[in-house]
Amino acid sequence: MSLTIKSHFASRTYLSFTTKPSRFTGYNTKIRPNSIYHFNPLRLTYYQPKKMQAPVQYSPAPLIKSSLIEPDGGALVDLVVPEGERGAKTIEAESLPKVRLTKIDVEWVHVISEGWANPLKGFMREDEYLQSLHFSSLRLKDGYVVNMSLPIVLAIDDETKERIGSSSHVGLVGPDGDLIAILRSIEIYKHNKEERIARTWGTTAPGLPYVEEVITPAGNWLIGGDLEVLKPIKYNDGLDHYRFSPKQLRKEFDRRNADAVFAFQLRNPVHNGHALLMNDTRRRLLEMGFKNPILLLHPLGGFTKADDVPLDVRMEQHSKVLEDGVLDPETTIVAIFPSPMHYAGPTEVQWHAKARINAGANFYIVGRDPAGMGHPTEKRDLYDPDHGKKVLSMAPGLEKLNILPFRVAAYDIVAKKMAFFDPSRAKDFLFISGTKMRTYARTGENPPDGFMCPGGWEVLVKYYESLQAEEATQQPAAVSS
Amino acid sequence: MSLTIKSHFASRTYLSFTTKPSRFTGYNTKIRPNSIYHFNPLRLTYYQPKKMQAPVQYSPAPLIKSSLIEPDGGALVDLVVPEGERGAKTIEAESLPKVRLTKIDVEWVHVISEGWANPLKGFMREDEYLQSLHFSSLRLKDGYVVNMSLPIVLAIDDETKERIGSSSHVGLVGPDGDLIAILRSIEIYKHNKEERIARTWGTTAPGLPYVEEVITPAGNWLIGGDLEVLKPIKYNDGLDHYRFSPKQLRKEFDRRNADAVFAFQLRNPVHNGHALLMNDTRRRLLEMGFKNPILLLHPLGGFTKADDVPLDVRMEQHSKVLEDGVLDPETTIVAIFPSPMHYAGPTEVQWHAKARINAGANFYIVGRDPAGMGHPTEKRDLYDPDHGKKVLSMAPGLEKLNILPFRVAAYDIVAKKMAFFDPSRAKDFLFISGTKMRTYARTGENPPDGFMCPGGWEVLVKYYESLQAEEATQQPAAVSS
Repeated sequence: MSLTIKSHFASRTYLSFTTKPSRFTGYNTKIRPNSIYHFNPLRLTYYQPKKMQAPVQYSPAPLIKSSLIEPDGGALVDLVVPEGERGAKTIEAESLPKVRLTKIDVEWVHVISEGWANPLKGFMREDEYLQSLHFSSLRLKDGYVVNMSLPIVLAIDDETKERIGSSSHVGLVGPDGDLIAILRSIEIYKHNKEERIARTWGTTAPGLPYVEEVITPAGNWLIGGDLEVLKPIKYNDGLDHYRFSPKQLRKEFDRRNADAVFAFQLRNPVHNGHALLMNDTRRRLLEMGFKNPILLLHPLGGFTKADDVPLDVRMEQHSKVLEDGVLDPETTIVAIFPSPMHYAGPTEVQWHAKARINAGANFYIVGRDPAGMGHPTEKRDLYDPDHGKKVLSMAPGLEKLNILPFRVAAYDIVAKKMAFFDPSRAKDFLFISGTKMRTYARTGENPPDGFMCPGGWEVLVKYYESLQAEEATQQPAAVSS
Repeated sequence: MSLTIKSHFASRTYLSFTTKPSRFTGYNTKIRPNSIYHFNPLRLTYYQPKKMQAPVQYSPAPLIKSSLIEPDGGALVDLVVPEGERGAKTIEAESLPKVRLTKIDVEWVHVISEGWANPLKGFMREDEYLQSLHFSSLRLKDGYVVNMSLPIVLAIDDETKERIGSSSHVGLVGPDGDLIAILRSIEIYKHNKEERIARTWGTTAPGLPYVEEVITPAGNWLIGGDLEVLKPIKYNDGLDHYRFSPKQLRKEFDRRNADAVFAFQLRNPVHNGHALLMNDTRRRLLEMGFKNPILLLHPLGGFTKADDVPLDVRMEQHSKVLEDGVLDPETTIVAIFPSPMHYAGPTEVQWHAKARINAGANFYIVGRDPAGMGHPTEKRDLYDPDHGKKVLSMAPGLEKLNILPFRVAAYDIVAKKMAFFDPSRAKDFLFISGTKMRTYARTGENPPDGFMCPGGWEVLVKYYESLQAEEATQQPAAVSS
């Protein structure tokens, strides 16, 4: 009823599940989950944990490796300079022409350096930029195609370009003046902002958050090259322990003997509708024959628009959801996805999915209007709410990823809980949008029972109270100045 | 010096030719022209024309078949209903809800029906439309990817959608009221004009010719489905004999025993710079080991913007160029490419190239700023003049096509002829733009000797004289009305 599994685009077959459990007792022949991991199911049968061994940090050679879903392009890049070389590289970086990065540029350095954008090794050169803009994918030298829907680029202004002159390499400097990285074998090319915006967002209307924050103020040149990051990017915001790299996530999936990893991208608080969906997905994966599906609950941690709930509040809310038992901590990993948000709908959802392949996920949950928002100047959704999952299911380079579209969940006023929407009794369902949820929290009104676990809800209420307190103190100051 | 041959994207190697003939006496090991045709070169060596046989319309089983470059998707579609079935299909079409086509919609029916957009069998359904917009390509059921950069769609308004109701098929009616085709198993979906324009042109600035002519006045729905065309599309404009279908062109290439077909897309009069380039390409193909390269001189015949030279004038001009011996009629085929023009630069040049694969061409000549124009509201080119050939060389589905980028030709005032521009003596060259050429013709001034053959130039002068005469007679009428 609620979940549709699309295994491969080429066959164009959707496998629709109903709520009848009888359909799921056996192995569904149209889906071959094993083939994704290339493991021998017979070996699995005979596997026995060695209980008598001394405890080790990571299990020795687990038989089922989630890491057997290959990162895009083969092996994960690791662009952080080894410790022994940092001194020399830093001295070299100091001697190079400098490019000053914004906070969001640093987020992209972080993203690239850990292999989320694998096999990208730095900011895009023009060949990569054009392929990303026109084809949402890159063709590698061996002919292999990987998805790459967002241009991951670094802009510079005329003055910086002048300063770089004919240098082949530049040093990248963070907003606080720290040397962060070297960009090698650079290529400088034109930054046609209008074309970039039109092809990425499908509109050039004023008011797109990433455009206003990043692109409009940026320079008229792009600089591509290979990154060497002088030390791992840290934010020192008390949340760095949530920032697992793709490599660390893969290790953790292996340690837990995951045989399926399903990723859930979010930038909002988790309500019980989300939880229903994630738990339901796990149940269905078990019914499909997987023994240990692990959920990667993966909130986006980079730039978000001003009225989104900030990362620290969301992380606290997610913790409560696990504490309150709405999601099972044994089968859930909560980690931060360090990418900035574009709000570019069908184009961006491909990036969200592709990055999770690199982190070891082979199932990706996609909902209504992923990475979408309202049109900035017209009274409508910017994107057709169904285009995200359609485009995702057809995107080049994502064939190996299992796309899990889901039907919308809403508050069932009869059952007094979040449930998958049943159009045959539409009047029993209450849709609580993000805006509505924020209004509840801001006005101190409680949402209906069962919408969100109480611990999680309390976090949101406190956040909006603090926001109002802050606004109240700022108001007179603004008037008097 | 002037011609660069790129054989395959994957290897990212450009083979640059200099003017030194010594480099071309042998067989270039990096290019394997024979592999494109899968013929046995030894058989070629022993081939002897059977001189004593009676003349036949087509040579019997030529050993080298240009048709061995496969159309996209396998076999050419032919969507024209066989004569024996036309009566019954016409009666059926009459009973169906009708969709009224514009002149340009009919041009697309023509394009689709003959297989220029192979393997497309009708106007795009939403899956195809989204792939075209996002990926400039379609993935077929067998996993094979074909290029498809322009959405080939049919728009209808609310009233027509209402009238169609739940019918599965519709009849397509031409601007004069003739029944032209049946569209079967239709799918109606939203026509988000803003998104279509932004993703196709990379701008939403007002003043794009195809947008103003076709998209802005169109309805808010698109209707996809499979075409059955009731009889071949004819224009009765005295030029139908130039309208060869891909199938007819392939037959003609076979008849001439072509072992390479190089296509030249154009929508302007041919000047001696074009001719130099085409003749130079043939010379180089011969040097590469081809025995009989044939030029497909392929002017675009569908919608063009108001200030372009009209098709009938261009065809007369092209005839003169062949009559005057600037191009060799023995090794040149002049035919009309029936597509309308989008002026969508790097996105459209892929369509221009892809359609020529279907017509049997395996070499495609691409120049500066293909399918480009000035920005409609800013004083600059709409597209980076180098992006067309770059995007073309990386486009999915065009890997089997050999892309031939060329350097710009200009008037050499020392040699008094068109020549490839030599930057080392830039001051000796005169660039004669389309606008400049039109100004010459309009004012009756002669361009420099050797710019264009006299017969061809005379055609243009006459056309602009007739235009001025027409304007002169219209002027008073406009004032008096």
